[in-house]
Amino acid sequence: MQSPKEIRLAIRNGAHNTNTSGLAGGFVQANLAILPADWAAEFLLFCQLNPKPCPLVGVAANPGDIAIEGLAAGMDIRTDVPKYRIFEEGQLVNEVEDIRDYWRDDLVTFALGCSFSFEEALLADGLEIRNVTEGVNVPMFRTNLACKPAGRFSGNMVVSMRPMKPADAIRAIQICSRFPSVHGAPVHFGDPAAIGIDDIHTPDFGDAVSIREGEVPVFWACGVTPQVVLEQARPPFCITHSPGHMLVTDLPNSKLSVF
Amino acid sequence: MQSPKEIRLAIRNGAHNTNTSGLAGGFVQANLAILPADWAAEFLLFCQLNPKPCPLVGVAANPGDIAIEGLAAGMDIRTDVPKYRIFEEGQLVNEVEDIRDYWRDDLVTFALGCSFSFEEALLADGLEIRNVTEGVNVPMFRTNLACKPAGRFSGNMVVSMRPMKPADAIRAIQICSRFPSVHGAPVHFGDPAAIGIDDIHTPDFGDAVSIREGEVPVFWACGVTPQVVLEQARPPFCITHSPGHMLVTDLPNSKLSVF
Repeated sequence: MQSPKEIRLAIRNGAHNTNTSGLAGGFVQANLAILPADWAAEFLLFCQLNPKPCPLVGVAANPGDIAIEGLAAGMDIRTDVPKYRIFEEGQLVNEVEDIRDYWRDDLVTFALGCSFSFEEALLADGLEIRNVTEGVNVPMFRTNLACKPAGRFSGNMVVSMRPMKPADAIRAIQICSRFPSVHGAPVHFGDPAAIGIDDIHTPDFGDAVSIREGEVPVFWACGVTPQVVLEQARPPFCITHSPGHMLVTDLPNSKLSVF
Repeated sequence: MQSPKEIRLAIRNGAHNTNTSGLAGGFVQANLAILPADWAAEFLLFCQLNPKPCPLVGVAANPGDIAIEGLAAGMDIRTDVPKYRIFEEGQLVNEVEDIRDYWRDDLVTFALGCSFSFEEALLADGLEIRNVTEGVNVPMFRTNLACKPAGRFSGNMVVSMRPMKPADAIRAIQICSRFPSVHGAPVHFGDPAAIGIDDIHTPDFGDAVSIREGEVPVFWACGVTPQVVLEQARPPFCITHSPGHMLVTDLPNSKLSVF
């Protein structure tokens, strides 16, 4: 199996330009948000106030830095992600395979934990994850759960949903509680309407999955939340990864476990 | 506030002969089972195979021992519990305030964790516990969840139920997971019928509590399980505490926390 560093180099050289799902098993993959310095402090505060949807695994120490200390050896954030999205005033204006042409000395890079890490821990424990079994993207929903606002950033939480039997959900809550940097424990289970979801079979993002008799939907804070919040805040410029095209880090998933 | 040792002495001297609810805050109270040596090995195995309903916090090292090492300074199990139940062939034959007249050199004493400890941790975290709010005994139900049999001991699990909003239930699962010696995480939430409970408003033991809109019933393995199993196994002789009349130990509740 390729190491995280080998995968980043393959991405950098254009040898790998598709999504990173299933790559570098055992290592943390990160969501990406890159913002001008005059928006970065407020976004940092937003993440710290809303750690479940926006769990920071790393922030560049200075504007213009192309690496995050300790996250990925030899990292160049301008080339090491397979696909990026460029936003202007909250509007998607381009999707590109490297951002060297867009780079600026005032850009601050944020890396946020993603559910791949806890899904791996759940699967390792023998739990079934329906979106994995059915080979689709996890279903995600907008909710009425308000994030804590920070400056120009505000909005409601987006959640991902995995159906489980209650006893499995209890085990999943235990396992995910060990991983606060990748969304942590679920935020809700059961009645979708209680968090503002009208139709559990029509996700706002991702794909629907089947829910079997005796199962309840279990909802986790989702890394799509900061993307939605960024779109609503409409900063003049920002960059994110394209969905599923993540930053592969050198951090073992177990490093994110708190006990 | 009286120390655990002072409370045990007051019980021993007959100055306290009612239930121990609310006494010795912060300290473990234990369920009691006392069995002849030729039944003790099987009961020990039963507890080890079923740690959620039968979480051992101590076992006497030898038949006839009136103390359990490390559990309670100066303990005399024949006098230090306010009320005992005497069983013959699985039938309750007497309820007494000390068991000196019943003591035998072949009796083995088991102390099992009780929900008082985790309820205290939940309350300390700001969660509401309905049976505490309503000033009644927790509702308990027989289920269709089979315990693992051990020799002559077998039977279904008894559970206690506390209604909670899902987000509070998730927090309660986290907190109780830290206390495996006092029943640990819940075993089920939601649909009572899924674990063989016909009517959530008619408990088999304890009192009914109100369940409010948006709440789900959350079910914990219950220390009544070993009593039911003992009654079914019909050993010629055994002794338990009377419900609510527990052994007050010197163990701080936090000592039972695993992380």
